[in-house]
Amino acid sequence: MIRINESYTRLQSTYLFSNIARKVTAFQESAPDKDVIKLGIGDVTRALPESVVNAFKTAVDEMASDDTFRGYGPEQGYDFLRDAIAQADFNARGAEIDASEIFVSDGAKCDTGNFQELFAQDLVVAVPDPVYPVYVDTNVMAGRTKTWTDGRYEGLVYLDSTEANGFVPPPPGESVDLIYLCFPNNPTGATATKSQLSEWVRYAREHRALILFDAAYEAFIRDDDLPHSIYEIEGAREVAIEFRSYSKTAGFTGTRCAYTVVPRDCVAYDESGKAHSLHDMWNRRQTTKFNGVSYPVQRAAAAVYSAEGRRQTRALTDYYLENARLIRTTTERIGLPTVGGENSPYLWIKTGTDSWSFFDRLLEEAGVVCTPGSGFGRCGEGYIRLSAFNSRRNVQTALERIESVLA
Amino acid sequence: MIRINESYTRLQSTYLFSNIARKVTAFQESAPDKDVIKLGIGDVTRALPESVVNAFKTAVDEMASDDTFRGYGPEQGYDFLRDAIAQADFNARGAEIDASEIFVSDGAKCDTGNFQELFAQDLVVAVPDPVYPVYVDTNVMAGRTKTWTDGRYEGLVYLDSTEANGFVPPPPGESVDLIYLCFPNNPTGATATKSQLSEWVRYAREHRALILFDAAYEAFIRDDDLPHSIYEIEGAREVAIEFRSYSKTAGFTGTRCAYTVVPRDCVAYDESGKAHSLHDMWNRRQTTKFNGVSYPVQRAAAAVYSAEGRRQTRALTDYYLENARLIRTTTERIGLPTVGGENSPYLWIKTGTDSWSFFDRLLEEAGVVCTPGSGFGRCGEGYIRLSAFNSRRNVQTALERIESVLA
Repeated sequence: MIRINESYTRLQSTYLFSNIARKVTAFQESAPDKDVIKLGIGDVTRALPESVVNAFKTAVDEMASDDTFRGYGPEQGYDFLRDAIAQADFNARGAEIDASEIFVSDGAKCDTGNFQELFAQDLVVAVPDPVYPVYVDTNVMAGRTKTWTDGRYEGLVYLDSTEANGFVPPPPGESVDLIYLCFPNNPTGATATKSQLSEWVRYAREHRALILFDAAYEAFIRDDDLPHSIYEIEGAREVAIEFRSYSKTAGFTGTRCAYTVVPRDCVAYDESGKAHSLHDMWNRRQTTKFNGVSYPVQRAAAAVYSAEGRRQTRALTDYYLENARLIRTTTERIGLPTVGGENSPYLWIKTGTDSWSFFDRLLEEAGVVCTPGSGFGRCGEGYIRLSAFNSRRNVQTALERIESVLA
Repeated sequence: MIRINESYTRLQSTYLFSNIARKVTAFQESAPDKDVIKLGIGDVTRALPESVVNAFKTAVDEMASDDTFRGYGPEQGYDFLRDAIAQADFNARGAEIDASEIFVSDGAKCDTGNFQELFAQDLVVAVPDPVYPVYVDTNVMAGRTKTWTDGRYEGLVYLDSTEANGFVPPPPGESVDLIYLCFPNNPTGATATKSQLSEWVRYAREHRALILFDAAYEAFIRDDDLPHSIYEIEGAREVAIEFRSYSKTAGFTGTRCAYTVVPRDCVAYDESGKAHSLHDMWNRRQTTKFNGVSYPVQRAAAAVYSAEGRRQTRALTDYYLENARLIRTTTERIGLPTVGGENSPYLWIKTGTDSWSFFDRLLEEAGVVCTPGSGFGRCGEGYIRLSAFNSRRNVQTALERIESVLA
């Protein structure tokens, strides 16, 4: 008899964004004349940069002729892209990463979700709270959690990200094995300094733990003192995997390209204490379960590193950051304490009420969709997330409506 | 301490195609003046059809303007593609499949590799021998196998595909839970009749087993009596998942698009015997670990179903089938018993020696790369696989060389 992976039954039945979509649909059906502005889900709205589009189309043209057609590419990604990444995203910032340590993929969601497959089932896993739900749910599916009680899974260590610690949790007192960190943070928009990340690297080295560092939003960093990569921290190569994405950097949410860095020095241990290369293991995983990213998409991603590509993607992130600044100015003027939005497209706003009530009020009175903070974890209760991904006009309209409802 | 998934240590250290690549590289270094023709790995060589290219580029243009830009799409795929699939690939053939039962993905390798995540670890898994290595390796990684002995993993049930059963194994005498089948077969090129598939569906219903049916090569079927989909068999909706791909159908190996059919009637059981919908579970898996296929790629795939797209993809598969016919004519003339190549791009050739010796001889004396049958399993020993994916000219040259060496 075919039997299910029982861990799936431990998953909370609905996913945050499906709940939001359901509420928005219900509202729109009840008030079909009201237009709704979505500042909830973190999806970009602006066109792909011109240089990216040109490279994309040129590569499709290559696929149109037998002489230049490309079939299966390397599962790890083409060298033209891996070389550009290693040089521009790491070496140019003083982080020692080789092109062979880059694994190109179709999304950071897939990679952050799949990476845990390489590890034992009885690990102690630490996740931030609030947290991007994928880190948690994929560990639930893998059987690393027990019952769901009071909004938390037994068996996980939650790293409270609160006002008290500036939304950057310090390493825990206890020993954990696998640690998910994300800076600039989703959902809070908080950033970590070099000294804060150094503390985590020190902890990981001391406990032989591994950090899965999600840097999907690094392109929004404007403060020169903030690290873009965990590999800017000494000693990180042995204890950290980094995830990057073109989704928010270059508007690739619908185009799909990302990458994961697995340094050759990074190891995990078997039961006898013998070290195994995570680079070898991830390579085995990817060559077995993945067939590489669409060739034209890889060419499109590589265009991000051209001179025009850099200028155009910078203009794109600048645009969203100006939206973020406008949002922050408004929420602070109304008197709502706000984090993020300076080196991040997300703003984390203290509501003074519970998150879903505030969500309902914003939707029903202002016609604006936010993301309830409690959907990201217990520490998110009393907060909402706003995202800067929208047109200037929509952001301005949304802010006027919010101000008229709340001020 | 971060500990590995010890099941990875049970994997055989090298993947078949990496071994071949290593041997070919070594040969080319030792004889740099000889040109090598690859009839080994199953990768297409001809350009994308014109209608596909046009749709692809039009969609990239949509991404170039804010007004028509698309961000995150549905993880399951866009309706324009799912509707076309349900209609053309199933309903038109009398198979009752709804568009909502189609999950678009970036590859059948990913889907056949990932689907086993939904199931318990202690299942009895049956795989054909010879077998596409992904079915086996992903179950090894998931911990469903024990030691590797005499070319087989303890803990798997192997379905011998031999001359005696026409390379279509009947259901086993014992009870198994999860069954991988692939027709037209990779690597043998054998096809299964409706009555043979009916036997499997009957077996699965009787044992509450589940069939994972890989139909990646169905576009090569020319015999009107052969089923293209397992859903052409009555009763299959409750016990079978089907995997399809545009890789070989439309030359998408480097473009990346495929899909998986999960009928709403298909269930698996928990320990208490309660049935769970696999459609719900796969939907949860995909929405958590996957972010959908690139929008322009989905538009390119949908063009396969236009009138010109059908004509052009048919011409593409016809071209490769003519290659297959030429190969088969030659190998049979030389006196090598040959299966496949009539409704399949693969030919399975009995060598009279062990597979790797024949591989070496073909490489060194004829400069032709084949795939050693033993790399696909114990029953593949004494065979090689040739693939029809190459230009007519290369195939003809390869055949001339093979004939002069072997005749």
